[in-house]
Amino acid sequence: MRKLKLSLAATAFAALPGLALAQDAAAETPDINPYIFTTLLFLIGGFLVFWMAAGFAMLEAGLVRSKNVTMQLTKNIALFSIAAIMYWLIGFNLMYPGDWVISGVMGPWFSITSLEPVGLAAADASLDYASVGSDFFFQLMFCATTASIVSGTLAERIKLWPFLIFVAILTGVIYPIEASWQWGGGFLSEMGFSDFAGSTLVHAAGGFAALAGALILGPRIGKYKDGKTIPMPGSNLALATLGTFILWLGWFGFNGGSQLAMGTVGDVTDVSRIFANTNMAAAAGAVAALLLTQVMFKKPDLTMTLNGALAGLVSITAGPLDPSLFGALWIGAVGGVIVVFVVPMLDKLKIDDVVGAIPVHLVAGFWGTFAVPFYTEGTSFVTQITGFVAIGAFTFIVSGIVWLILKATMGIRVTEEDEINGLDMAELGMEAYPEFKAG
Amino acid sequence: MRKLKLSLAATAFAALPGLALAQDAAAETPDINPYIFTTLLFLIGGFLVFWMAAGFAMLEAGLVRSKNVTMQLTKNIALFSIAAIMYWLIGFNLMYPGDWVISGVMGPWFSITSLEPVGLAAADASLDYASVGSDFFFQLMFCATTASIVSGTLAERIKLWPFLIFVAILTGVIYPIEASWQWGGGFLSEMGFSDFAGSTLVHAAGGFAALAGALILGPRIGKYKDGKTIPMPGSNLALATLGTFILWLGWFGFNGGSQLAMGTVGDVTDVSRIFANTNMAAAAGAVAALLLTQVMFKKPDLTMTLNGALAGLVSITAGPLDPSLFGALWIGAVGGVIVVFVVPMLDKLKIDDVVGAIPVHLVAGFWGTFAVPFYTEGTSFVTQITGFVAIGAFTFIVSGIVWLILKATMGIRVTEEDEINGLDMAELGMEAYPEFKAG
Amino acid sequence: MRKLKLSLAATAFAALPGLALAQDAAAETPDINPYIFTTLLFLIGGFLVFWMAAGFAMLEAGLVRSKNVTMQLTKNIALFSIAAIMYWLIGFNLMYPGDWVISGVMGPWFSITSLEPVGLAAADASLDYASVGSDFFFQLMFCATTASIVSGTLAERIKLWPFLIFVAILTGVIYPIEASWQWGGGFLSEMGFSDFAGSTLVHAAGGFAALAGALILGPRIGKYKDGKTIPMPGSNLALATLGTFILWLGWFGFNGGSQLAMGTVGDVTDVSRIFANTNMAAAAGAVAALLLTQVMFKKPDLTMTLNGALAGLVSITAGPLDPSLFGALWIGAVGGVIVVFVVPMLDKLKIDDVVGAIPVHLVAGFWGTFAVPFYTEGTSFVTQITGFVAIGAFTFIVSGIVWLILKATMGIRVTEEDEINGLDMAELGMEAYPEFKAG
Repeated sequence: MRKLKLSLAATAFAALPGLALAQDAAAETPDINPYIFTTLLFLIGGFLVFWMAAGFAMLEAGLVRSKNVTMQLTKNIALFSIAAIMYWLIGFNLMYPGDWVISGVMGPWFSITSLEPVGLAAADASLDYASVGSDFFFQLMFCATTASIVSGTLAERIKLWPFLIFVAILTGVIYPIEASWQWGGGFLSEMGFSDFAGSTLVHAAGGFAALAGALILGPRIGKYKDGKTIPMPGSNLALATLGTFILWLGWFGFNGGSQLAMGTVGDVTDVSRIFANTNMAAAAGAVAALLLTQVMFKKPDLTMTLNGALAGLVSITAGPLDPSLFGALWIGAVGGVIVVFVVPMLDKLKIDDVVGAIPVHLVAGFWGTFAVPFYTEGTSFVTQITGFVAIGAFTFIVSGIVWLILKATMGIRVTEEDEINGLDMAELGMEAYPEFKAG
Repeated sequence: MRKLKLSLAATAFAALPGLALAQDAAAETPDINPYIFTTLLFLIGGFLVFWMAAGFAMLEAGLVRSKNVTMQLTKNIALFSIAAIMYWLIGFNLMYPGDWVISGVMGPWFSITSLEPVGLAAADASLDYASVGSDFFFQLMFCATTASIVSGTLAERIKLWPFLIFVAILTGVIYPIEASWQWGGGFLSEMGFSDFAGSTLVHAAGGFAALAGALILGPRIGKYKDGKTIPMPGSNLALATLGTFILWLGWFGFNGGSQLAMGTVGDVTDVSRIFANTNMAAAAGAVAALLLTQVMFKKPDLTMTLNGALAGLVSITAGPLDPSLFGALWIGAVGGVIVVFVVPMLDKLKIDDVVGAIPVHLVAGFWGTFAVPFYTEGTSFVTQITGFVAIGAFTFIVSGIVWLILKATMGIRVTEEDEINGLDMAELGMEAYPEFKAG
Repeated sequence: MRKLKLSLAATAFAALPGLALAQDAAAETPDINPYIFTTLLFLIGGFLVFWMAAGFAMLEAGLVRSKNVTMQLTKNIALFSIAAIMYWLIGFNLMYPGDWVISGVMGPWFSITSLEPVGLAAADASLDYASVGSDFFFQLMFCATTASIVSGTLAERIKLWPFLIFVAILTGVIYPIEASWQWGGGFLSEMGFSDFAGSTLVHAAGGFAALAGALILGPRIGKYKDGKTIPMPGSNLALATLGTFILWLGWFGFNGGSQLAMGTVGDVTDVSRIFANTNMAAAAGAVAALLLTQVMFKKPDLTMTLNGALAGLVSITAGPLDPSLFGALWIGAVGGVIVVFVVPMLDKLKIDDVVGAIPVHLVAGFWGTFAVPFYTEGTSFVTQITGFVAIGAFTFIVSGIVWLILKATMGIRVTEEDEINGLDMAELGMEAYPEFKAG
């Protein structure tokens, strides 16, 4: 992920990679191809991660009951849109304050994002990196992903508007601050913390925000009764599976794009490694959950398998480059195992996580972050844990405060009657499947 | 969008952008990378816009009632396929007559598309542009999009075959003619009209063809009764949301690819601007519609929000490059507002537009076209309106004539009985969801 | 598709394409851009073919009855994951033994795949090709596709675990062996057999494995009764249509990526030809099936049209580069015709192919392979038939043996009661649409 960027034109030119030109003509004709390749990487990676927003929408719409589907869809398209606006308004420049240091003063901390002028001249470009527009586009998608994680956990009982206000704060302030600690050149990056594409910064952070909300919001009515967990099966597993495939596809952009460069042999080969490892971790997570549910419950469980694939993806996200394919396999497989054990554990704690986002994003996010030193030199387990705890504590506490304020002011939970009737008719007056009778 | 292309090998070489080579060796070794980058832009842009065909199919299948879903799916896959054939057979060469001027005569106007030979030598390529194959592939998708817009408006009552005949004429003749006025180097481009990726040429044109059809076809049975509009809710809002996300994703190719070049620092940076602006306009359209429906109806409306995002996208399509992110935000937001006001307005006029394609594509298309001069120098509001009126009038009148001829000859509307029973069983004998009981 | 690769660094440098540098400076600064472009082609092509796994899942989930949807989804995500692991563990190196010849000995035949080291130096890369990681990623997706084909045919009656064991053998051993005959530099490639992207190697092979299974497994209960074929309509045609669009999109990567190079004008132009031809063949297949079902049955048939598009795609896959657009049109159209005639023919033979995978992949796969010499010089119909028969016989016989062993040992078919109740509740205890009443 992007480090503190001192984009002095001079250093940019000095650092120019790629094919050197014959003799002393070099200085006159800088190689623009690395800039184009890396910008292209961000654009492709960015639209793939954008696609993950659709994946979360489908996954969550498939895993809630039919009476809450319209609401879940509304939340998902709204949260992405709000994230896009907030990240432009505050988030991007808040997350990369280092870009401003160059002018001699820290900040301005709160400033909207500006793009390069139309038809940028090569002489004015950061030829050692990529266009600001592509970088902003790519980074924005990570911010939105953090919010997508929250909506699944809190489904079927949270009011629309308090949820969207939380999303605005999360994407405008909370995520950019904690992410700046590492990707903005903050103290975690100086400490040697390593989180390549965001097992902690994106996934666990989203999971902590969701956990704080789940604790304050409480479980759905009837979920835990007489010490038992009552199953509330998702209404459309085809949608949930589609969502998982979409997320899997988008993750190639999520992890691959985080190489942040594609203009050299080393970089594009590394992107290839990341694609292959990402795919392997997802496959291993799915197979692990499938086998384990067969062994433990005598019946393979599709939703566990889907979440197993996602947990495999989250697990490899902190370090998708350095492991061998075998490394990706076992790291991803542990992610799948985590899902199978942590989902019932949360239920025992009466933490009601509708889609399993906490096991997948928070717990597998911890695992992925912790596992980095197995393959990445110069990292340490202690530092990894420290970084995870720092981001987790910050996100959990600040999110918790925001949730409590929202609860105290406008209320965050729908009425009992509305919850039983379903949020779709109560809050929106619109059913997702109006012609199909509920069984 | 592509301008009149005088692809003389000589001018091609003279116009060569990119890294100049050392000394006089330049002439011997032209830089092929811009050609590869731009061709790649068309291929990626093209497959993203192809994906929009799936988006329209899902959006429309989700917004019709379950008894018409199979028909809507059939129309969508058929219309894309017919567009692909007609654009090859007539459309592409009709739309770019300028390519033929070079031979000294105008035309041949009606000729099928030919690709370059296999293994094209660099010396024979338009090194200042891209491969014909990629250009054809990309342009074809725009032609198909125009047809996709029509199918939604006329759903639930139009017969399959007359509709498909109309599609053949629209994609083979009507669209290529009006689009050639601008992108084929015709009189609108000479006038200074500006429509970067087709707010008017594609979206409004599709909207006008749909409007002509809707007026001649009339509303669905029971839609307007005793001065009231009877709601006919879509059968599957999860599909409709998926379709919207697909369209949003595809639009990055639609607008980004329309830069028509990616081989220089300026071009790839511009593509990045376009991606960022396109995303912002969609987000702003969605948020605007969400907020406005909350304020006006006290309940947020998901279908309005989805259409708001799409209207935001249509609004930015005429000028996605020049606005700042703030410009994209307010232009897109106005698109969202348009949807909320124009949808009920059409109902008052008893124009039955099943999916809201006229507000989204025609009205927001006008808005987007009109708004160009706010950010693009050298354009004028008067010229923008003139261009819109010219294309609108032509498309509306010719489409109307075709619809009237179809009505007079084979009939365009199903029988009352068939409409009530649903087109799926009546015309196709196949239900989309045969096992689910209608409520 | 990849040929025997003798990746001596020396030959790699000698074969360097692209812009030569001025004078004798050339040797010092090899052009890395072709390597980056081709690697990028594999990454983009690879994620598009990955997406086909989702396409198969949606297509099949839409075409089975609702009581078997969860199972079909489970099989699809599991088969992809298993393919990913098996191809890494055995398949990739088994399929490309030529890569090992260089060390002086054949083999090791069974070895896991290793990627290049992180941060590969340009001097150590196969600059005439692409990164191993991207190649593995791309090839893996073809292997998984072969398995996806099988799951559709055998749906609604085969047990989960025997099916997955078959998948492991197919993707780890059977596919790599037969594919190595051509793409691994084996005897078929030496004979002059031509199968650009795998009409035979992937599609027909998958079809033969499915056919062997269908014969041994037998038809679904009640499918053939008193000499009649009882229709068992798919539960969700919107999903089936979505799946078809996904497959169509993914096919651009499938065929386009198989050019295996994108770093020269000739190569990227060829990739463009392939995109355009692939799209045309799909469109023609869809239109042919639509028209033919209208003529033959008086009602257009959506599932036939979807399968027509897919058959068009399979038909062009053996030779997507050389035909003109007109060639792609008629080759694809014949594919669509094949579907309409072969589907009922299989039913007469009481071969129960739930989704029509045998007509689409095996029969149209034959047609596509056979048709290559119409446009590709140096190929012969006899050689094409020979290659098809060799691969077909091998795959059919070995698959049949594996199916028979599985049948004899653990059994491959669910009990009659489970089949009638549906595999979802019987084997998985989880319905796909638990809230919607079956009609």
